[in-house]
Amino acid sequence: MTTTQTPDTAPHQTEGATRPYSLARPCHADDVPHWDIETDVAVIGFGAAGSCAAIEARAAGAQVHVFEVAAAPGGSASWSGGEVYVGGSGGTRVQKAHGFEDSTEDFYTYLMMAGGPGADAERVRLYADHAVAHYDWLEAQGVPFKGTYLPGKWLEPLTDDTLLWSGSEQAWPFSAQAKPAPRGHTAQFKGWGGGKMLMEKLCARAQALGAVVHCNSRAISLIVDRERAIVGVVVRIEGKEQFVRARKGVILCAGGFIVNREMVERFAPGALHAQVVSGGNDDGSGIRMGIGAGGATIHMDQFFATLPFFPPESLVKGIFINARGERIINEDAYHGRVAHYVLRQPEGKAWLLVDNEIFGRPMIQPDIKVAAVGETWEEVEKELGLPEGSLVHTVSEFNRHAAEGQDPLFHKAANWLRPLTEAPFAALSYCRGDLNAHAFTMGGLHTRPSGEVLDADGQPIPGLFAAGRTTCGLPRWGEGYSSGLSIGDSTFFGRQAGLKAAQS
Amino acid sequence: MTTTQTPDTAPHQTEGATRPYSLARPCHADDVPHWDIETDVAVIGFGAAGSCAAIEARAAGAQVHVFEVAAAPGGSASWSGGEVYVGGSGGTRVQKAHGFEDSTEDFYTYLMMAGGPGADAERVRLYADHAVAHYDWLEAQGVPFKGTYLPGKWLEPLTDDTLLWSGSEQAWPFSAQAKPAPRGHTAQFKGWGGGKMLMEKLCARAQALGAVVHCNSRAISLIVDRERAIVGVVVRIEGKEQFVRARKGVILCAGGFIVNREMVERFAPGALHAQVVSGGNDDGSGIRMGIGAGGATIHMDQFFATLPFFPPESLVKGIFINARGERIINEDAYHGRVAHYVLRQPEGKAWLLVDNEIFGRPMIQPDIKVAAVGETWEEVEKELGLPEGSLVHTVSEFNRHAAEGQDPLFHKAANWLRPLTEAPFAALSYCRGDLNAHAFTMGGLHTRPSGEVLDADGQPIPGLFAAGRTTCGLPRWGEGYSSGLSIGDSTFFGRQAGLKAAQS
Repeated sequence: MTTTQTPDTAPHQTEGATRPYSLARPCHADDVPHWDIETDVAVIGFGAAGSCAAIEARAAGAQVHVFEVAAAPGGSASWSGGEVYVGGSGGTRVQKAHGFEDSTEDFYTYLMMAGGPGADAERVRLYADHAVAHYDWLEAQGVPFKGTYLPGKWLEPLTDDTLLWSGSEQAWPFSAQAKPAPRGHTAQFKGWGGGKMLMEKLCARAQALGAVVHCNSRAISLIVDRERAIVGVVVRIEGKEQFVRARKGVILCAGGFIVNREMVERFAPGALHAQVVSGGNDDGSGIRMGIGAGGATIHMDQFFATLPFFPPESLVKGIFINARGERIINEDAYHGRVAHYVLRQPEGKAWLLVDNEIFGRPMIQPDIKVAAVGETWEEVEKELGLPEGSLVHTVSEFNRHAAEGQDPLFHKAANWLRPLTEAPFAALSYCRGDLNAHAFTMGGLHTRPSGEVLDADGQPIPGLFAAGRTTCGLPRWGEGYSSGLSIGDSTFFGRQAGLKAAQS
Repeated sequence: MTTTQTPDTAPHQTEGATRPYSLARPCHADDVPHWDIETDVAVIGFGAAGSCAAIEARAAGAQVHVFEVAAAPGGSASWSGGEVYVGGSGGTRVQKAHGFEDSTEDFYTYLMMAGGPGADAERVRLYADHAVAHYDWLEAQGVPFKGTYLPGKWLEPLTDDTLLWSGSEQAWPFSAQAKPAPRGHTAQFKGWGGGKMLMEKLCARAQALGAVVHCNSRAISLIVDRERAIVGVVVRIEGKEQFVRARKGVILCAGGFIVNREMVERFAPGALHAQVVSGGNDDGSGIRMGIGAGGATIHMDQFFATLPFFPPESLVKGIFINARGERIINEDAYHGRVAHYVLRQPEGKAWLLVDNEIFGRPMIQPDIKVAAVGETWEEVEKELGLPEGSLVHTVSEFNRHAAEGQDPLFHKAANWLRPLTEAPFAALSYCRGDLNAHAFTMGGLHTRPSGEVLDADGQPIPGLFAAGRTTCGLPRWGEGYSSGLSIGDSTFFGRQAGLKAAQS
């Protein structure tokens, strides 16, 4: 491998001109005319995963260059709520301070359930064992957590509190298998958007440790040598292609693919009609580079979705029904889980039934269509055009049990159970066309917990690592998501990838 | 590219020794010591897709070598019922002879619904337009079809009849969108297993046309040149590696991955506990070679599943309920669709409720567990431990409507509707552990309808083609499958791939 800075000595430059490279087609090392930048580790993307990969790689003594396509650091995580889903080991200091004991086994069990049929026991075990230490590490990097607890049911805190219930922990079937604890830990920030604070601190830390950060820098191709190892990356900076040699490896931390509509259509068509949850650069470029290098992808169809049907949290006391007039889920489950159930109902039809006492305009979608209003549930049923008696039966059974604090069909927790008996009654439309779903993708490169990208035989591709939504990590089942799981995964496994690459 | 037969002149042989290749890691052309076999087109797998690819490639004048891992031709298709799902263009000669008009638009609409959210309109359009001609082509290759029609609801015909209802055509929601027609066309063969006849004819035809067939031949690696084109394949024959040059291309027709438990766990965990539907060699080798060459995979989580709860078809008049005592689907839908609904019920619990008149032992699983028996539905409900009143309400509502020939909740067709009123009553267990599901995988390489394998940018990989279950074809959504769709897809798109490769 030549490392000369002059193109003239690049052995295959002329031939190289006939071998175009792209995201999907790695550049041959033989075609590299010269190295513009040489480093130990090249990190693609400076978001949650990339910043933590850079910190650990630097801490392990490796030279690190980070290439971020946006004009500023932070990635999609900086547009998020800044929640990190951590627990186990008896509890974080915040959990403990507020009286929540959280055993590693309960945390592990919950995460395995959250991972769905494809849950990765090795990954979950590593995370469950070390999440509390990871929380401490985040604090040590300078991420502020106020340490206070916010009870209630929130999408994200509007306050600057730390600890909240951010998943389905207290909801069936999770609560039946694992003792619940609040595990969403939010960076201190007033109002929504704590991710900005989180990412400012992590990115600043990476830079303070000496990671060289290039913004406005678009990775356009991996560089592969004759032994099929990844030895660098081609990056376009200010319109010019720069050849970056990465002696120890390239770490793909370039996010998911929700903003790439063609990829969503191809890989995750269920998410096609949702609004994107992204800082804008989840264009699948990291995943495409990984595929081009021979990496396998897993669970590409899976996505996070939400229908922010609350706050106000009183709406959680309503009941979701479908076109058969049947309830479909315990409404106290995580809103993203509720969303997946709502989205898959026959003919795309679902409604949230409320009575006068619990009604309030959903804060995120205040113009939600009220599909029916009535003084009796019979009127609502008729106005929705449902089979005669179907809705009335569902509501009357629900009311009968709720009056006793029971929900034998869906096991909604008692504190959300109240008969819907105060007229007028209404049905809010969560039918296709009326609802406002948001999504990001969960599928991605198949990796070891160490961040090593695996090929179709399950073997690591030398020199190639990935973390965050470029991979399929802890979040890999739409129905099982909890807020903070993506950032928890990205920061924790970003660290593993940074460390592994530095030690390569 | 050297084509010498002596290893000594291979320019990179020594280097090559340090570059191991595998399914996931293509062999470099530079490392090929010599060519043992030279051909225009190399076809990997001699099943439904491979045989048709070989026929068309030969018919177009290309030299063809076929490499089949098994000791005999036929692939998994030869273990199947030998059904081909075709229609449109007014109907096949058999459909027409029995009075079934089948418009291309109805056929197209049905196939698009069957493809689910990821349906590929271009692929479906090509197939819908040309399926009748494809049926005629199969006959012209020597595949016998008796031409008779078998009414009723069957998994596969026990007779040697041709035409049967083999999907969800007459079931809601399909029937509401597309005028139904029977489209399963079965090769003439008494009893189950018409696939043997189908494949004998197709494989014989390919050989008669001059395709050179190597059995007991395992493809172990694609061969890639410096321009990233696929130029051949390494095959192990009688323990020896043979280097096969394929001037026009390699066509991967090596089946799905259901027998590879590690791949099922990684890519399609939902299918993990089902029995495999395979001739034994759906080991994912074709897909792994495609990934290794930079090919993208789509819908890898999807799988065909069936619970053969009928025959006898009287059982279709029963109703499936879950642990909430609610019905879950119109039971007259295709058995594979019913299976997916059953398999995803909470806690893996579902039962088929029957009364004395319709009860019969399921032919495929005669030892099905009878979970409850009672003289009243109250007794059955109690014995199953369901919430009080839940099952009784479901049955009484079903009975009330069925007596009127109606099913307002699930739209089961009138001919399957009959009140369940003749005691004793029973619940057959389709709970996890009691049921006997069978599965094959639907996900695979992303291809154009032409068979060109696409990379992560959606661009074809030169020299690489694929068809059948190595690709994600028409069958790509478990809930939408119909019998005959996989062989219809494999034979039709196998032909496209053979033709395209030959013309390359």
